[in-house]
Amino acid sequence: MATEATADDTDDASDAPDAYDALLDRVQRWNAVGSASGVLGWDQQVMMPEGGTPARSKQLSALSSVHHDMVTDDETGELLDELDDADLTDEQAAVVREVRREYERADAVPVELVEEISETGSEALQAWEEAKAEDDFDEFAPYLKKHVELKREYAEHIDPDRDPYAVLFEEFEPCLSMERAESILTELREALVPMIDDIRDSDVELAVDTFEGTFAEETQEELSREALELVGYDFERGRLDVSSHPFTSGNQFDCRVTTRFDETDPLGAVGSTIHEFGHAQYNLGLPQEHFGTPLGQSRDLSVHESQSRLWENHVGRSEAFWERFLPTFQEHFPQTEDASVRDAYEAFNQVYEDNFIRVEADELTYHLHIVIRFEIERDLIRGDLAVEDVPEVWNDKYEEYLGIRPETDTEGCLQDIHWSHGNFGYFPTYSLGSVMAAQLFEAAESEIDDLDAKIAEGDFDDLHDWLGENVHQHGSRYETNELVKRATGEDFTADAFLDYVDEKYGELYGI
Amino acid sequence: MATEATADDTDDASDAPDAYDALLDRVQRWNAVGSASGVLGWDQQVMMPEGGTPARSKQLSALSSVHHDMVTDDETGELLDELDDADLTDEQAAVVREVRREYERADAVPVELVEEISETGSEALQAWEEAKAEDDFDEFAPYLKKHVELKREYAEHIDPDRDPYAVLFEEFEPCLSMERAESILTELREALVPMIDDIRDSDVELAVDTFEGTFAEETQEELSREALELVGYDFERGRLDVSSHPFTSGNQFDCRVTTRFDETDPLGAVGSTIHEFGHAQYNLGLPQEHFGTPLGQSRDLSVHESQSRLWENHVGRSEAFWERFLPTFQEHFPQTEDASVRDAYEAFNQVYEDNFIRVEADELTYHLHIVIRFEIERDLIRGDLAVEDVPEVWNDKYEEYLGIRPETDTEGCLQDIHWSHGNFGYFPTYSLGSVMAAQLFEAAESEIDDLDAKIAEGDFDDLHDWLGENVHQHGSRYETNELVKRATGEDFTADAFLDYVDEKYGELYGI
Repeated sequence: MATEATADDTDDASDAPDAYDALLDRVQRWNAVGSASGVLGWDQQVMMPEGGTPARSKQLSALSSVHHDMVTDDETGELLDELDDADLTDEQAAVVREVRREYERADAVPVELVEEISETGSEALQAWEEAKAEDDFDEFAPYLKKHVELKREYAEHIDPDRDPYAVLFEEFEPCLSMERAESILTELREALVPMIDDIRDSDVELAVDTFEGTFAEETQEELSREALELVGYDFERGRLDVSSHPFTSGNQFDCRVTTRFDETDPLGAVGSTIHEFGHAQYNLGLPQEHFGTPLGQSRDLSVHESQSRLWENHVGRSEAFWERFLPTFQEHFPQTEDASVRDAYEAFNQVYEDNFIRVEADELTYHLHIVIRFEIERDLIRGDLAVEDVPEVWNDKYEEYLGIRPETDTEGCLQDIHWSHGNFGYFPTYSLGSVMAAQLFEAAESEIDDLDAKIAEGDFDDLHDWLGENVHQHGSRYETNELVKRATGEDFTADAFLDYVDEKYGELYGI
Repeated sequence: MATEATADDTDDASDAPDAYDALLDRVQRWNAVGSASGVLGWDQQVMMPEGGTPARSKQLSALSSVHHDMVTDDETGELLDELDDADLTDEQAAVVREVRREYERADAVPVELVEEISETGSEALQAWEEAKAEDDFDEFAPYLKKHVELKREYAEHIDPDRDPYAVLFEEFEPCLSMERAESILTELREALVPMIDDIRDSDVELAVDTFEGTFAEETQEELSREALELVGYDFERGRLDVSSHPFTSGNQFDCRVTTRFDETDPLGAVGSTIHEFGHAQYNLGLPQEHFGTPLGQSRDLSVHESQSRLWENHVGRSEAFWERFLPTFQEHFPQTEDASVRDAYEAFNQVYEDNFIRVEADELTYHLHIVIRFEIERDLIRGDLAVEDVPEVWNDKYEEYLGIRPETDTEGCLQDIHWSHGNFGYFPTYSLGSVMAAQLFEAAESEIDDLDAKIAEGDFDDLHDWLGENVHQHGSRYETNELVKRATGEDFTADAFLDYVDEKYGELYGI
């Protein structure tokens, strides 16, 4: 589909006003610099020897400042002004909309403030690491306070008249309204708190023992490669490596995934690998002819997370997938030869109702971890919560929503790195992505004959086609809700997700 | 020693004119962009999946154009003008000298010509690959002709009144005179042609059989790592990987080497690994506090090659080295357990008097391969030789200098990639580097007590110190001949090299 779209685009481009072509040239150049930074970032996390940090910091900071200068150059503003009343195709208008947003945001914030935030981030990261190691929130608190102040100032530069948290949220999710996001998160909280309570009370014991034991990391790596082969990762445009935190990096020509291994948790590695595959598949599905322009770039974090969660949860955690994959798993780990498909399904979908740690959470409790962070950071930024009260509010909310109370801040409000970077507004996109995944997958299921049976056969072609046609090929052409609406026929809501978990966990736990 | 130098430098910097500090800021920024390109280049050759090429080309071209714009920005020229009569320390004056050279060269050549050369390079590379595969020089000839024309034009922009080949040579070796280079190459030819003739006539049979057979690549890789450990490669600031052509890439914080393996040639891998180690050691020895300025950058290609050749030839090919390393080699390859140190020394130093291929040449014949390329490219650029006559002249020269005549252009004038990139003036630096290595090593030997015995014990500390003090720590502070003169007390000549080979090959071949 991406290819069919090309011919039209090229025609459009040749009719474009000169200012549009000039703008596009600039944008492609600064995005090439941006994607070069991406390669350096990947290398830093995967390949770089330890000693390389000082040089890498200077390289990244030079590229970032070059990028900023290119975006905020007067000529960008002049070209955008010229295009204000220009006669543009829908596609050209979408490009101009996206570039204008990027320009205006970059132009609004003084470079000095950006640099101060970045420097605070380096100090805060170190303080956070120490605070977490020593379970000492007070050590981190001054940096968190500084970040909150700086980010409120940042938001004020962009728009002094709006809710600063909404402005910061747009840094990660620029075209989804805070209202919609907040209402989805509220719905999640309202539905999941009682559901998890019911699961806690349920007598059902899932079959988890089969996947307990020790599973060699080398074999897990082979298995991860097999999983990627099975779902259709294109190794000629990608790589699998190991890093301390799994991530995906790249573009439509070269998009790499990483994973990590825990000897006691082979299902975790499979899930994480398929998750990153979903991210990679999105980037690899972007139209190649639009590389470096908004039409060749992914929509924002929620949509990206919808692609990873769709593959991780709706494919990887399905019974159908394990019909196909269990024999492969057992070949690599003969110790699990007695496991049935149902065993694997149950083990991979158990709800950890007593877990404090977000990154170890299951598909259900995960969202309460997110809701808690969302409510706290929102109130911090809105000025409704003081930094020193964070630990207590955190623990209270864990007790209220999840029925558990962390005993230390290390396994409480100090567990995540995000706030040490000054990232407020990022967390919600994780949940929004999962919710969107459910809505997209429901639509795919309704349009693809026997999708479940196809997954059980290891045939993912129709699903790839559907995602390519409905999500990947559009790049940033449509804003988030419009993208979802075009793909599914409905506005973006939590309905499909809640139906999905109701049915799935109702069956699993007899609730 | 690098650390001792710091205190002075910092004092100097604080007294520097404002224009100097401003210039230094600019230089550090553009060099950070340049070294970011280096990371992308390393990744492309070592890690990048095949499909990544289109994106990588755009990233590299954007960075290269950003770099060019930064160097040639009017402000660079203005700051240099301001510094024309400024009161500078020697060190500051060296920085200004190096930056001025870079600025003037970049500023002299129109961007369009640079781009045309780069585009011709892409086409020429493809044509060369086909021509080489099909032994069809005519296919490559038009591109070579175009490159010659473009590079003559390039040289004319820089200086219309000088020998264009000398101007191009300065692209790779900007501060060594063509006269000195040419006279060294001529001396090499005059001395080596008869020496190789004598070796051909010699009855001596070197012990080469011991190292014939099959040597698993994996074991060769382990052995390469051991060799790097032994000579003192700092793996916390580097990596060893495999690539189709061995190379070194990086800076004083992170400098990586690659090597390659041939199952039938384990000595080749050892030599190539130690060679790249020499390059890496130079970069890793540059002063860290001068990262991104000429004082923290290596002198040019000849000096760089002197460091790799010193380690490869004067250490790696020495009998002393094999006293220490042979047991390690034999542990990895027990099939060689009967080899003596002398056997290894002879096998590693045999002269391949019937070899046509430069990259497979030994320490002696190597230079005649270079002299032939030098004479041909010099005459092409000077307009004294027509492209269509290259194959015949090539073959005639091989016959005259080496006593062998290639039967095909594939193993003749099409064997090397350099001309397809339009690189004329590069080849001589290979020989100049070897010659310089001999002069530096002779000086190190005269200043270090029992260097030979130390090498035999695997103790390289004094040699590292000597090279650090006399070469690495200076960065680009001194021009090439001055650097050599300060290190050795003599102008740069071929004398030490010719003494070295006379003695070594006289003993080996009884000539």
